[in-house]
Amino acid sequence: MAKLSGFPEFLPAERAVEQHVLDHLRRVFELHGFANVETRAVETLDTLLRKGEIDKEVYVVQRLNAEEGDVAELALHYDLTVPFARYVLENANELDFPFRRWQIQKVWRGERPQQGRFREFTQADIDIVGRASLPFQADVEVAQVMAEALAGLPIPALTLQVSNRKVLEGFGLGVGIAEPTVVMPIIDKLDKLPRDKVHADLLAAGLTADQADAVLDLAEISGSGAEVVERVHALGVSHPLLDEGLAELAAVVDGVQPRDGVTVIADLRIARGLDYYTGTVFETRMAGYENLGSICSGGRYDQLAADRRTTYPGVGISLGVSRLLVPLVADGLKASRAVPSVVLVSLADDEARPAADAVARHLRARGIATEVAPKPEKFGKQIQHAERRGIPFVWFPAATPSDEHSVKDIRSGDQVPADPDTWDPPPADLTPVIRPLNAKEQL
Amino acid sequence: MAKLSGFPEFLPAERAVEQHVLDHLRRVFELHGFANVETRAVETLDTLLRKGEIDKEVYVVQRLNAEEGDVAELALHYDLTVPFARYVLENANELDFPFRRWQIQKVWRGERPQQGRFREFTQADIDIVGRASLPFQADVEVAQVMAEALAGLPIPALTLQVSNRKVLEGFGLGVGIAEPTVVMPIIDKLDKLPRDKVHADLLAAGLTADQADAVLDLAEISGSGAEVVERVHALGVSHPLLDEGLAELAAVVDGVQPRDGVTVIADLRIARGLDYYTGTVFETRMAGYENLGSICSGGRYDQLAADRRTTYPGVGISLGVSRLLVPLVADGLKASRAVPSVVLVSLADDEARPAADAVARHLRARGIATEVAPKPEKFGKQIQHAERRGIPFVWFPAATPSDEHSVKDIRSGDQVPADPDTWDPPPADLTPVIRPLNAKEQL
Repeated sequence: MAKLSGFPEFLPAERAVEQHVLDHLRRVFELHGFANVETRAVETLDTLLRKGEIDKEVYVVQRLNAEEGDVAELALHYDLTVPFARYVLENANELDFPFRRWQIQKVWRGERPQQGRFREFTQADIDIVGRASLPFQADVEVAQVMAEALAGLPIPALTLQVSNRKVLEGFGLGVGIAEPTVVMPIIDKLDKLPRDKVHADLLAAGLTADQADAVLDLAEISGSGAEVVERVHALGVSHPLLDEGLAELAAVVDGVQPRDGVTVIADLRIARGLDYYTGTVFETRMAGYENLGSICSGGRYDQLAADRRTTYPGVGISLGVSRLLVPLVADGLKASRAVPSVVLVSLADDEARPAADAVARHLRARGIATEVAPKPEKFGKQIQHAERRGIPFVWFPAATPSDEHSVKDIRSGDQVPADPDTWDPPPADLTPVIRPLNAKEQL
Repeated sequence: MAKLSGFPEFLPAERAVEQHVLDHLRRVFELHGFANVETRAVETLDTLLRKGEIDKEVYVVQRLNAEEGDVAELALHYDLTVPFARYVLENANELDFPFRRWQIQKVWRGERPQQGRFREFTQADIDIVGRASLPFQADVEVAQVMAEALAGLPIPALTLQVSNRKVLEGFGLGVGIAEPTVVMPIIDKLDKLPRDKVHADLLAAGLTADQADAVLDLAEISGSGAEVVERVHALGVSHPLLDEGLAELAAVVDGVQPRDGVTVIADLRIARGLDYYTGTVFETRMAGYENLGSICSGGRYDQLAADRRTTYPGVGISLGVSRLLVPLVADGLKASRAVPSVVLVSLADDEARPAADAVARHLRARGIATEVAPKPEKFGKQIQHAERRGIPFVWFPAATPSDEHSVKDIRSGDQVPADPDTWDPPPADLTPVIRPLNAKEQL
């Protein structure tokens, strides 16, 4: 009965925090007109291994007593992007493009568990996919929507770092590197390795010392769109692809409306390991939790989904909800109560149950979450029962039809007469409240 | 890229139906004070095989490149009851009992796919679990809450059938059957097999012809609580356990408040195959869709969760959301639109984008889901774009600050001046509407 490493589970008051975050994300995504989709948890092994470089991390799924006819080798999906690309191809005739969808589901990776890295975790993705073409504006939009969604959460400050693989590729071509894409996974390690070590790796990949220096100088540039364009131009390298990439990068960084708690900057260290990205790329750091790595990543993928006739270029961004929440919850982010109930209706004796049920029915009909005490006990015990669950109010039904009902705020001890058809709790008590965690230092 | 049999996926307008149903279920569960829990998708193979009799149906999960140290054999859960029992034992010190939880998640069974039977499907469960004891009232409550949840859905009429294993067991003991529990899986087949065949199976299980007749007479009884008690008494068998079961059965059937679209009856054919049930058992049939089998099942389990010191008796009921929805959606249950958007803001040219974005921001700030046209096109094309998605309103931003905005209802063609800070859509247009499916005959 030991817990399984890498498969986190929340207690109810912790799950309430996660549910609050998921509800908020959904609300923002829907306000922007994104439609919801769920894809099955399994893909054919073939689909999964074709797209990524993470074959070691895949969980294969097999019937305990497999039979003939079970031909497809299945595995659990490791992200929501590859399944979404498959879904778009399968349903292209039924979808209207550009197709904008949000998707929140569990994904699985057989990696070694460590802080912020799980074997089962929840991702929240938004993507916009076109048929044959997709306006560049979609890159700005997914960044805008995710920044808006993140800005409304009770979490530490975030920095959304934007880069563009055309900048890296164009710059590489400009300094005479024949295959600049091989440079990207090396550059992507700059936040974990010192410059010397990355320089050596670049030489090992066939770059000259001057080329390696130039690429590292580029990767160390960050700032606003305009600042980054100016500093890249100052490096004196020119290539049409570089210019195109810089224009796109500045448009994304400067196009996102400022939001409290979310800073958007251009940062040319960001390259993303996955090779399906073709332009804009995103990563996100959380203040005080930089060791978790990027909690929200994505980018433009012009070639991920294609059938014989058509390509479906897309851009998306994926929030690691578990990577964000599990450490915050461990550090103390909690809901004010473990149950939705605002009111516990007390029970004087078994005969009083129909009257107590009636009170509960009237309160629920007006949207007030209510439970009835599980059994008649001394009122002191029933109040303790509410206290242990964080339920703020205990209702005492009228003993006879001519008596009055009353309701007690068990925090203050105040008890007042009340009518189940008109009494309302203070709005702040209606649903559990999440206690915000502004900065790690405050813990 | 072929679809996988048994792993249904919805198009966006279909998923909107499912989301509507899931939101409604959650709302009812929370109004009754049930807390939410999610458990990991995998359990140890050991946990799963100990509880059920469905070893053939389990999907085993394994890392593609398994390493030493991956000792636990893992499998996908096939229901939410066994994982919940494990969760309760693991977290017993952190939970407050009686613990009431709702849980909506995917489950997986490697069964042969057929109508209403999937390999991946969604279940919605409520359970109440006590420590050492659990008041019988909990049996009534889970039935009441699920009946209320089901009554609010746009689906055909439902019959919640209730029985009690103490009735079957006590009656069996009363007619001299030594091991009445072996009779239950045989009786449970009465809705698929003729009486003769079940009679023969009962003889094969060691019953006398008289015992088999008596048990079949019992199983053919159904009706209100009072009716069933009277008809069972008329069979002239008596046993203390029978009396206890009949009292419980009548209390559940007569204790659930009547609801539109949901009938609650006692039906002694219902026995449930799983041997962890110890009292109340539930099944549910949908009018016109009887061939799907039970869409909502459960019961009382006094022994499912136990550690060395304590048992945690529980009662729960589990709705097969996919079994309910996939056939209804295939028969035509649809959302009025595939996207959340109420408004599409049109775009005269690229320079108009900031003004269009500003309109969208003002509408969203008041809870109106809004998208901006992906690119400037002829207005006729932009209206078609809205039409294809079912978006009811197209917004035309003011061309200059001194002009007026206007908004067009593209269904009627009416266009009126409008202010993004005050205009509201008719309430019925605010979110997609589900078109109800009252009876199969109407299709």
